[in-house]
Amino acid sequence: MLIHQPVWWIHAMLIQRRQAGSRGPSAVLRNTNSTMRDASDDWSWRNTGGSMSTAQERLKTICWADGHVRLIDQTRLPTELVYLDITAAKDMFHAIRTLQVRGAPAIGIAAAYGLYLAVSDFPDHRTTGDFLAYVDKNCRYLASARPTAVNLFWALEKLGKTAHAYSGSSVPEIKRHLLEEAHQIFATDRQTCRQIGENGYELVKDLSAILTHCNAGGLATSEYGTALAPVYIAAEKGHLLRVYADETRPLLQGARITAFELHKAGIPVTLLCDNMAAVVMSQKKVGAVIVGADRIARNGDTANKIGTYSLAINAKAHGVPFYVAAPISTFDPNCPSGDKIPIEEREAEEVTCGFGKRTAPEGIDVYNPAFDVTPHRLIDGIITEVGVVRPPFHEGIDRLFA
Amino acid sequence: MLIHQPVWWIHAMLIQRRQAGSRGPSAVLRNTNSTMRDASDDWSWRNTGGSMSTAQERLKTICWADGHVRLIDQTRLPTELVYLDITAAKDMFHAIRTLQVRGAPAIGIAAAYGLYLAVSDFPDHRTTGDFLAYVDKNCRYLASARPTAVNLFWALEKLGKTAHAYSGSSVPEIKRHLLEEAHQIFATDRQTCRQIGENGYELVKDLSAILTHCNAGGLATSEYGTALAPVYIAAEKGHLLRVYADETRPLLQGARITAFELHKAGIPVTLLCDNMAAVVMSQKKVGAVIVGADRIARNGDTANKIGTYSLAINAKAHGVPFYVAAPISTFDPNCPSGDKIPIEEREAEEVTCGFGKRTAPEGIDVYNPAFDVTPHRLIDGIITEVGVVRPPFHEGIDRLFA
Repeated sequence: MLIHQPVWWIHAMLIQRRQAGSRGPSAVLRNTNSTMRDASDDWSWRNTGGSMSTAQERLKTICWADGHVRLIDQTRLPTELVYLDITAAKDMFHAIRTLQVRGAPAIGIAAAYGLYLAVSDFPDHRTTGDFLAYVDKNCRYLASARPTAVNLFWALEKLGKTAHAYSGSSVPEIKRHLLEEAHQIFATDRQTCRQIGENGYELVKDLSAILTHCNAGGLATSEYGTALAPVYIAAEKGHLLRVYADETRPLLQGARITAFELHKAGIPVTLLCDNMAAVVMSQKKVGAVIVGADRIARNGDTANKIGTYSLAINAKAHGVPFYVAAPISTFDPNCPSGDKIPIEEREAEEVTCGFGKRTAPEGIDVYNPAFDVTPHRLIDGIITEVGVVRPPFHEGIDRLFA
Repeated sequence: MLIHQPVWWIHAMLIQRRQAGSRGPSAVLRNTNSTMRDASDDWSWRNTGGSMSTAQERLKTICWADGHVRLIDQTRLPTELVYLDITAAKDMFHAIRTLQVRGAPAIGIAAAYGLYLAVSDFPDHRTTGDFLAYVDKNCRYLASARPTAVNLFWALEKLGKTAHAYSGSSVPEIKRHLLEEAHQIFATDRQTCRQIGENGYELVKDLSAILTHCNAGGLATSEYGTALAPVYIAAEKGHLLRVYADETRPLLQGARITAFELHKAGIPVTLLCDNMAAVVMSQKKVGAVIVGADRIARNGDTANKIGTYSLAINAKAHGVPFYVAAPISTFDPNCPSGDKIPIEEREAEEVTCGFGKRTAPEGIDVYNPAFDVTPHRLIDGIITEVGVVRPPFHEGIDRLFA
């Protein structure tokens, strides 16, 4: 089930670099390894901005590969790039539970394919009624992998409904519909993120660098991410934007994941501690801040990873535009404002002994909120797949749900 | 040379708790272990604010103890409290070089006692000229322990000049003057920090909590520290202020040192990641921010540990008073403004593998400034040993140097 691919091997085998095009130095990067082929188009981009000094790859967070799921084990990052080949529901359950796959959209995709894997070996000659009961049982099983992951439930409910909608069909036909539904969830996520990237690109096309927090990149979704999607779209257009990545204490998603995926994709990335962002802004090194979102209230107040609020205050103080990038599904039309969003506090050990070493004395109090809420007055725009929502947000968001 | 004292032993042996006073529950804490006696007064404080649930101690960063120096090995914090008994110059050289003793004032004191230790076994019957040459040689030796530590050079120069000022005296007489000078440096630092604490207390006496960054506490000085001195003075007056301590990435001085010394002293401390300070302010949990300083320009612009600037912006945004606490020796009257203060950038590994484990991919760029400069417009007062300097700072600072 586990394939360990050292980085040099990836570079040597997965990537072919070719000279292409007629406008000066360029490189076309294409995934040519047949075992990596998936349900979506092969990806490629052309850089016409200059020659590239190292081989590059857009990471495939998760994909369907010849009858099984291949995903990156995110618990091994950033020191090892390990792909897991998942062929059984119990392995997908384990991957979701242990955060080998993380990020709301990626979890949804994993769950959908996971359900298909769970039911694909059900005997074709048995009754549709027996099969639907088996589908329901496996939905409940996979849903228990992470009890608070909304996208997990959403994807499983979607596939469950599909199965029951075809209750007049044969078992093999329903299986085929389930796999198509999983492919559809994958393709829709990819398209949504790509569109967020296209819309966000308009905001950054004249910039040389942006700053981001946590990971709202390709490793949280099928490919493009949300906050990082404009950066990947820019790269496709031959415009390499530098990304200043907050390391994002306490769990260091910026250091471990954002820096990793950008570096692998050949995007220039500069890692910094969260408390250094203000200095980077005062030195005019970044032209915008783009972050993801966990939940957006009806008035535009945005819950996101802890540290986002401090960053927004610093951006306002330095006149740096502050953007949130998120699909429409992140808006909660029933939540009027940010003060109604509960903030999870997590265990002290994430702060005091996060990396295999105790860094604070025993017995002290620790404050460890997982998220904070950035008030809408600090946000200059919310980048969605249907366009950029601008202040006054309550009007723009009302239109989204009209 | 090394005495390992597990925490339970400290609690059991070094501290006696007695009921004292007549105004309700109280606890007088007194250091009664004779091996810990030093050149300054024994310390004690009376808490009349309520009973204390655990034994408490104000840590002795460094002290003179019956012919040798005893200091806390700060490289072992926060997991172990280890005292080093230093009897020879080479051991003091090692302690300074390896950061077993740190913080500008504490290094100055260590160097002064270290020089005395270095020359104390010089034969008393030899000539004063030979002795002065030996003093000079040892000054040069100890000064090479940390090539950029200003207080190290300052203290050694002070003792060297004292020795030469007594060139008409005998070797034993000069030795006595050197030890007195070292005691004087210690006592002056203690008095300066105590006075900063008294002056700062006026600013916090009506508060229940403050927030601080990095370590400008007793473990950087002889006892009271600078930013934490008002908190210790408050405790002496029976007023327990809670301290919210930023962990202070990348080197975690707040988690390792500030949280440790406050917890040992029985001051309530809440550790947080740097990026959480804005949330703490928005929740009105802290009534002021107090930080130390590395260098203060003539106009009040203040260089301090990276993260201070971001904190000051957040304090201003939330209407939380922002104070700098520092002795007058921290002002640089020849530096007109903060943009003239060079900012040291340090190695990437402090950010990418600071927790004993690599937390970011190899090969990425890292931005790691050690300090930042907080402009004077964000500072509400500078607490010194002669009083609190208020805006407009150029006038107040001019008066300090008039």
